[in-house]
Amino acid sequence: MEIKIMKNILDRNQNKADEIRNLLTLKKVMMVNIISSPGAGKTTLLERTCEALGAKFRIGVIEGDITTDRDAQRLKKYNIPIVVINTEGGCHLDSHSISKVLDNFDLDNIDILFVENVGNLICPTQFDLGESFKLAIVSTAEGDDKPGKYPMLFREAAAVLLNKIDLIPYTNFKIRNFNSDLRKINSHIPLFEISCTRGDGLAEWYKWIVEQVNSVTHFKHGVPRS
Amino acid sequence: MEIKIMKNILDRNQNKADEIRNLLTLKKVMMVNIISSPGAGKTTLLERTCEALGAKFRIGVIEGDITTDRDAQRLKKYNIPIVVINTEGGCHLDSHSISKVLDNFDLDNIDILFVENVGNLICPTQFDLGESFKLAIVSTAEGDDKPGKYPMLFREAAAVLLNKIDLIPYTNFKIRNFNSDLRKINSHIPLFEISCTRGDGLAEWYKWIVEQVNSVTHFKHGVPRS
Repeated sequence: MEIKIMKNILDRNQNKADEIRNLLTLKKVMMVNIISSPGAGKTTLLERTCEALGAKFRIGVIEGDITTDRDAQRLKKYNIPIVVINTEGGCHLDSHSISKVLDNFDLDNIDILFVENVGNLICPTQFDLGESFKLAIVSTAEGDDKPGKYPMLFREAAAVLLNKIDLIPYTNFKIRNFNSDLRKINSHIPLFEISCTRGDGLAEWYKWIVEQVNSVTHFKHGVPRS
Repeated sequence: MEIKIMKNILDRNQNKADEIRNLLTLKKVMMVNIISSPGAGKTTLLERTCEALGAKFRIGVIEGDITTDRDAQRLKKYNIPIVVINTEGGCHLDSHSISKVLDNFDLDNIDILFVENVGNLICPTQFDLGESFKLAIVSTAEGDDKPGKYPMLFREAAAVLLNKIDLIPYTNFKIRNFNSDLRKINSHIPLFEISCTRGDGLAEWYKWIVEQVNSVTHFKHGVPRS
């Protein structure tokens, strides 16, 4: 019984996600569904990425948060369109909540729409939002066993950002353990070792995301924001 | 419709949780439901606590994990009863899964039953397991905004362990911000600032947990494990 209910919820989510994906393909908008544990660095990654690519691409952000607009407040200074979805206790975004807020964006003038999902390594993975791809962020402070223990996200994501590598000297994190677990789950997934506070590895991340957006929005990219 | 379904699930969970609570009260077992994000230090806290209190109290552990038994393997060396519940992708434990494994424990010879919930700051908070109380763990590396952004757990927990305080010098974590948010949500909750790897603050934690178990199991505690 519970399985059937869950399947109905997921089916309805999938139908709406397909609609969104069709619309974004038509509008040549790349939507990136960013998933991580609480505090892995999603918002700081968006801050760095807006600083580095905000002049080259037109960026929009959907902020999924349980109850506050704190992450959105941090991004206000970049003068980009931002919409907050408060889930009121809900543990993930779904395609219906995304669909309801898409009208707030001028999609003809957006190249990349980042969705910062609720901080949760599990539930958001199950709900397709109509994104171009999922992005996994994990912090070294969480330990090197996360791909092995929470494999779903690492199986589905298009890339993994290992953040806070500046903390490795102060923890027992072993990159070879992390990498070995990750490769068992997803042998070819790109892995970027970064520090959003110190800047390590971000150039490679920017290069990769630019390649992705160019492949999605090739008729539209490179238009300077007005 | 979805709200009704959710309510039925929660009602059934509550009924079973009440049964468990009655049984554990009868058996004078204190059950502690440990909730945190992935990698905040739940298993390391259990390692330290088994080392410090394993001779004084009879400890049992239920390990909630999505797919592996890695955390249980780390605790094997303490020679305590451990049962693993693999949720197969599920984002939380519920009272039915706890009820099914309780038969594996000799409850007459257990003082403290620690339940390490699935690493998730959101969903586990909604499901009463029949525990004596919930314990919140949060790592400084997650940032000082977690009580504000994920208030549910901090509202319900009996105590908060702020772990990895040894990392504070290498992050932008401000204890006054954390504390100020926490006090708005739960003004009197005990807060322990600890480092499970370095040992800071653990003596206060042991003292507190001993007080709790003494109040629950006062006819039974202090019996050395055979």
